[in-house]
Amino acid sequence: MNQTAKKTIPVDIEGICKAALEASRAMVTIDTETKNRALHKMADALVVGQNKIFQANGLDLSEGKKNGLSLAMLDRLKLDEKRISDIATGLLRIADLPDPVGEVTSMKTRPNGIRVGRMRMPLGVIGIIYESRPNVTADTSALCLKSGNAVILRGGSEAIHSNKLISSMLMDSASEAGIPENTIQIIPVTDRTVVSDLLSMDRYIDLVIPRGGYELIRFVIENSTIPVIKHDKGVCHVYVHSDADINMATRIAVNAKIQRPGVCNAMETLLVHEDIASSFLPKVAAALEGGGVELRGCQRTLSILNNIKAAHEQDWEEEYLDLVLSIKVVESIENAMDHISTHGSGHTEAIVTSGFRPAQKFVARVDSSAVMVNTSTRFNDGGQFGLGAEIGISTQKLHARGPMGLEELTSHKFIVFGDGHIRQ
Amino acid sequence: MNQTAKKTIPVDIEGICKAALEASRAMVTIDTETKNRALHKMADALVVGQNKIFQANGLDLSEGKKNGLSLAMLDRLKLDEKRISDIATGLLRIADLPDPVGEVTSMKTRPNGIRVGRMRMPLGVIGIIYESRPNVTADTSALCLKSGNAVILRGGSEAIHSNKLISSMLMDSASEAGIPENTIQIIPVTDRTVVSDLLSMDRYIDLVIPRGGYELIRFVIENSTIPVIKHDKGVCHVYVHSDADINMATRIAVNAKIQRPGVCNAMETLLVHEDIASSFLPKVAAALEGGGVELRGCQRTLSILNNIKAAHEQDWEEEYLDLVLSIKVVESIENAMDHISTHGSGHTEAIVTSGFRPAQKFVARVDSSAVMVNTSTRFNDGGQFGLGAEIGISTQKLHARGPMGLEELTSHKFIVFGDGHIRQ
Repeated sequence: MNQTAKKTIPVDIEGICKAALEASRAMVTIDTETKNRALHKMADALVVGQNKIFQANGLDLSEGKKNGLSLAMLDRLKLDEKRISDIATGLLRIADLPDPVGEVTSMKTRPNGIRVGRMRMPLGVIGIIYESRPNVTADTSALCLKSGNAVILRGGSEAIHSNKLISSMLMDSASEAGIPENTIQIIPVTDRTVVSDLLSMDRYIDLVIPRGGYELIRFVIENSTIPVIKHDKGVCHVYVHSDADINMATRIAVNAKIQRPGVCNAMETLLVHEDIASSFLPKVAAALEGGGVELRGCQRTLSILNNIKAAHEQDWEEEYLDLVLSIKVVESIENAMDHISTHGSGHTEAIVTSGFRPAQKFVARVDSSAVMVNTSTRFNDGGQFGLGAEIGISTQKLHARGPMGLEELTSHKFIVFGDGHIRQ
Repeated sequence: MNQTAKKTIPVDIEGICKAALEASRAMVTIDTETKNRALHKMADALVVGQNKIFQANGLDLSEGKKNGLSLAMLDRLKLDEKRISDIATGLLRIADLPDPVGEVTSMKTRPNGIRVGRMRMPLGVIGIIYESRPNVTADTSALCLKSGNAVILRGGSEAIHSNKLISSMLMDSASEAGIPENTIQIIPVTDRTVVSDLLSMDRYIDLVIPRGGYELIRFVIENSTIPVIKHDKGVCHVYVHSDADINMATRIAVNAKIQRPGVCNAMETLLVHEDIASSFLPKVAAALEGGGVELRGCQRTLSILNNIKAAHEQDWEEEYLDLVLSIKVVESIENAMDHISTHGSGHTEAIVTSGFRPAQKFVARVDSSAVMVNTSTRFNDGGQFGLGAEIGISTQKLHARGPMGLEELTSHKFIVFGDGHIRQ
C-alpha cells in the first residue's frame, strides 16, 4: 500500500476551515440584536456552568503541576468564581458596544453622478493562535462574533481542557440565540504540525493573530500564507526633555514603570536630557527604588546615581516585563528619537516637556503605535482609548496599529449606486 | 576553504533594504512642497531624457524579439513619445493630490481628560514586485514618494534596461529637489532567488505588493514573511434581476464586457434571472455578438440562444480578459449571490434592478471589493472613485480593499496629549 507512509493528521483542519467559511458567510446576514442576545446567553452559560469549568480547569492545573509549570503560570491558568464573573462581565460589555458591520463610513457623488461609498464588512474568518490564559478563549470569541466574523481558536496545550469546554459552551449558547453553527471553533489538539496546516489555509482564513512570545510569533510569520497581524513586544520609552516639570516627569515615570510592570505598555527605558539629569535623576531614582525597581544606567547616569548597576548594550532592547529599568542620558531630543528608532519596538513612547516645539517634533517624527505627550505609556490600551474592548495591540503598520477593537476586525467594501451609468 | 560552497548573492539585498529603511526615516520629515517639487522634476527628467529612455527600451525590445515575446507583449513593453508624455502627466497629477501624511483623522477627549487622536504616517518601506509595463516603475515610485514611503522596485526581466534607467532618472531628479537618497531603488537583477531574499526582509520592509499573474502572486504569498497586499484576478459578475430595465441592463452588460475587455474590472460572467431571460438574452446577445464577443451559455441559456457554445464548469471561474463571456440563467437573487460567492474572486459585482429590496439585499450581502447597483463594473477604479491615482486594486480584505490610492499607502499612529496624566 503506497499510502501508509503518508502523514496522519489527527484533525481535519481543512474541514474546520471550510465550516468556518460557511459560518462566516451566514454571519453577514445576522443582525445586531441576535449577536447581542448571543453574547448575553454566552455570559450566562459560563456562570451557570462554572462548576464544570472548574473541573476541566482542575485537569489543566494538575497536568501543569506534573509538568512543572511555575507558580506564576499556574496562577494565570487558574479559573475561579471571580475570574469567571470577570469574563462574563467582559462579554456583556462587548454586547453594549456599537455594531461596526454595515456602517457606511463615507458616501460621495462623483462628477458623472454615480455615488461611491464605503461600507464596513466583517473580515470573514479569523484564526487566533495564543498561549495565554483561558479568558482569551472567551474574549476573542466574543469580539469576533460581535464584528460578524467566524473564529478558529488554537490555544496552548497547558489550557486545552479549559479552552475546549469554554469554547463549546460559548458556541452552544450562541447557536441557541440564532448564531450559525461553527462560528466559534477550537482546534482540539495542540501539536505544532496542526498549526502549520492551519497557516496554509489562505483560501479560507482572512487573518491570523498570534498572541504569545517571540518564538510563536516568528513561527507564525515564517509559516503563514494568511495575512498576519502580530502583537509583538513593547520596549517603551519615556523621554524627559530639558524643560520638563520634574514632579510631573517623576509621577509619569513611576506610573509607567510600576503600575503594572508585566504588560507591554510599561516603560522599559527612561531617556533623560543632559540639562535636567542631575536634578531629575536622584529624585526619580529614589521614587523608583522605593517602589522596588532595579535601575541600570548608562555611564553618564552612573556618574549621577552611584549605587546602581551599569546598563549593557542588550539592556536597550530588553522587554523586562518586570521591576527593572534602564536609564540613559542623551544630549538632545534628536538623540532621544534616534535611540527610540534604533532600539525601540514601535509600541509606545512618551515625551515629558513643557515646550510646544519639542512636543510637536516628538509627535510628528516618532513612529510608534502610540506617541504621547505628558502622559504615562500605560494609556496605550483599547479601553483607555475608547475602543471599548481590544483583541490586542498591533505592533505592525498594516491594517491595524495599536489597540485593535471591533472596527479593526472589519474590512470595508466600496458600494456604488448609479442609474444605468456606463464608462466612456 | 569551507566557504566556497556558499551561495553567492549577486546583489546586496540587505544593504538595499537598510538604505531604504534609512531613507524612509528621513522621508517622515520631508514637507509636501519638497515632494511636489520632486514630482515635477521627475516628470521633466523623463521628457528631457526620453531619447536615452528610447535607447534602453530598444535593448529590451530587441532582446524581447530574440526571446520570442508576442507582438502584444512587445507592444506593452514599447515606450514612445506619447507614452513618456502620459507617464509625465501622471506624475504631475500625483503632485496635485493632497498629501495624506500628518493628517489627523480623529481627535477625542476621554473622560479623564487625555486627548486621543489618530495621525496618518507613511507605511515606511514598500516593495513592489511587478511584471508589467515600464510605466509601473514611474507610477508606483511617484505614489510611494508622495505618501512619504521609500520604495524598492523589482520589475520583470523583459523591461530591465528601461526600468533601471527610468528609476535612476527619477531618483536623481528627486534628490535634486531634496528627497533623501535611496528613497527610490531598483533591484538591478531579475533572478528569482533575489526575490526570495527580498521577501524575507521583514525587519526592513513594511509591505510587499505583487502585481502580475497568478504564479507570481502565489510565489510571493508562499515565500514572504513581509505583509502582502495582493492584486489578484477579477472574475466580475453582472446580475440582471427579473425587474431590470432591459435597455439599461443591455447597455451595462455591453459596457462591462466590451469597453476594455483586457482589464480586471471587466465582466466575465452574466447572470440572468429566469423571469427576464427570454426577453433579455436575445437582445443582449445580439449587442454583444455585434461587438465581437464569443458567448458560452448554461443549458437554460442554450435553450434560448441556439447558436452559442456551451459553458463548462471551469468557465465560471475563468478570467478571460478577452472578448469571451459566460452566461447563466438563475432562479433567484439568492442563486445569483451563491454563484458569486462560490465562483467569484471578490473583485467587482453589479446588479441591475429597478427594485429597492433586491438592490438593498445585493449590496448588504455580496462581499466583494466593490458592489454596484445599476452601473458598469468598469467603474471600480481609483480615478473613477475619486482617489486620484491608484497603485492597483486589492482583492484581499486586510488594510486595503479595492482601489489603493495615497491614503492606502499610509498607516496611522495614535497621538495622545495629557497634562501629567497617570493610570490609576
